[in-house]
Amino acid sequence: MKGQELPPVTIRRHPERGHYDAETIHAIIDAAPYCHVAVVRDGMPLVLPTFHVRIASDIFIHGAVATGFFQELAEGSPVAVAVTLLDGWVLARSWFNHSANYRSVVVFGRPREVVDTNEKQRVFEAFAHKVVPGRWQDARQPSERELRTTRMFAIPIDHAAAKVRSGPPADDADDLGRNTWAGVVPTKLVLGEPVPDPGQSPSIPFPAYLTEWLKRAQSES
Amino acid sequence: MKGQELPPVTIRRHPERGHYDAETIHAIIDAAPYCHVAVVRDGMPLVLPTFHVRIASDIFIHGAVATGFFQELAEGSPVAVAVTLLDGWVLARSWFNHSANYRSVVVFGRPREVVDTNEKQRVFEAFAHKVVPGRWQDARQPSERELRTTRMFAIPIDHAAAKVRSGPPADDADDLGRNTWAGVVPTKLVLGEPVPDPGQSPSIPFPAYLTEWLKRAQSES
Repeated sequence: MKGQELPPVTIRRHPERGHYDAETIHAIIDAAPYCHVAVVRDGMPLVLPTFHVRIASDIFIHGAVATGFFQELAEGSPVAVAVTLLDGWVLARSWFNHSANYRSVVVFGRPREVVDTNEKQRVFEAFAHKVVPGRWQDARQPSERELRTTRMFAIPIDHAAAKVRSGPPADDADDLGRNTWAGVVPTKLVLGEPVPDPGQSPSIPFPAYLTEWLKRAQSES
Repeated sequence: MKGQELPPVTIRRHPERGHYDAETIHAIIDAAPYCHVAVVRDGMPLVLPTFHVRIASDIFIHGAVATGFFQELAEGSPVAVAVTLLDGWVLARSWFNHSANYRSVVVFGRPREVVDTNEKQRVFEAFAHKVVPGRWQDARQPSERELRTTRMFAIPIDHAAAKVRSGPPADDADDLGRNTWAGVVPTKLVLGEPVPDPGQSPSIPFPAYLTEWLKRAQSES
């Protein structure tokens, strides 16, 4: 399995929804808060959600050293990574033509373990910046011990495809006369009202970078 | 692989977050709009997003007959299904203790293909009811041909585990004195403003069940 060629990434069903350019693929990976990583263990499929960040043409994932899931990754076994964003429900006039608008990416690759603590540190900084810009500077940064007890893997994005659906429903000509409302109801992951840690001193102010982050998330939705 | 025993579902990392009761597992599966299904193809992992609905203790997924992905399912190869809901960003005082609140389920199982068109019809009705209550009655229901050209699989949920994190950050005692705001910023998938199909007659009213659906989604967020 280790030496085996990675599977093809050609989109066979709805080929017109397929994209293979790095710009489209990277943008979807960046927009998604988390991904799903699949490996083969003892011949059986295993899939788990995990957070990720992209730097250049690598996806980085990380976790505690104890994460059982990382055994296969450390051995260099191939992984499949799926990144999925649901953008809306597509309500057609027939049930059969109901669909969803979405952006998705699947990457096949062989993970490389990141062992250098400086590289780990840089990836964490990028991850913090992706999720909450400004947080890296405000929080206590990782200690040597913390970096050592975190395992990290880079998966190259050079064997990947995106699949994207957007726009209105595609109904059969025969159904267009129906008296059924048709259209798209967009969906979006939004941020809610922050809940301060109950153990926190009330004198600690809510930081400006968080206000900015919430405001930007609001305006994008 | 076909006769092989399914892998254990015990949560090893953060065992206190593990749940094995059907009530918890079913509620998470029902709350998620889509899942990720992993299979092994030629010894390599493959994972794809797809929509699902639960009825009793089965997850049902479906797709066009041409879906290449269904080859392994039809052969009865084991699948791993992951269902993931991101509930919030957990902002701790140290970067290391940053986390997320989430509800996730992983199911291992051998799919059974649904071939009876009456069963398919019932599953589609349940799926419509899950996504947009009232839509099934309003849209044109599937024809015999449409049911035949849709492939459907049931995956039993009897070999599954849930993992759930909720609540405030868990900081190290040494970090509690820091002047860093700590807490949770909730996240939620919400519905946006409906976009009517441009080809639609303006005389078609926006149906009451959709207004109801949007209102309920709003009040839950």
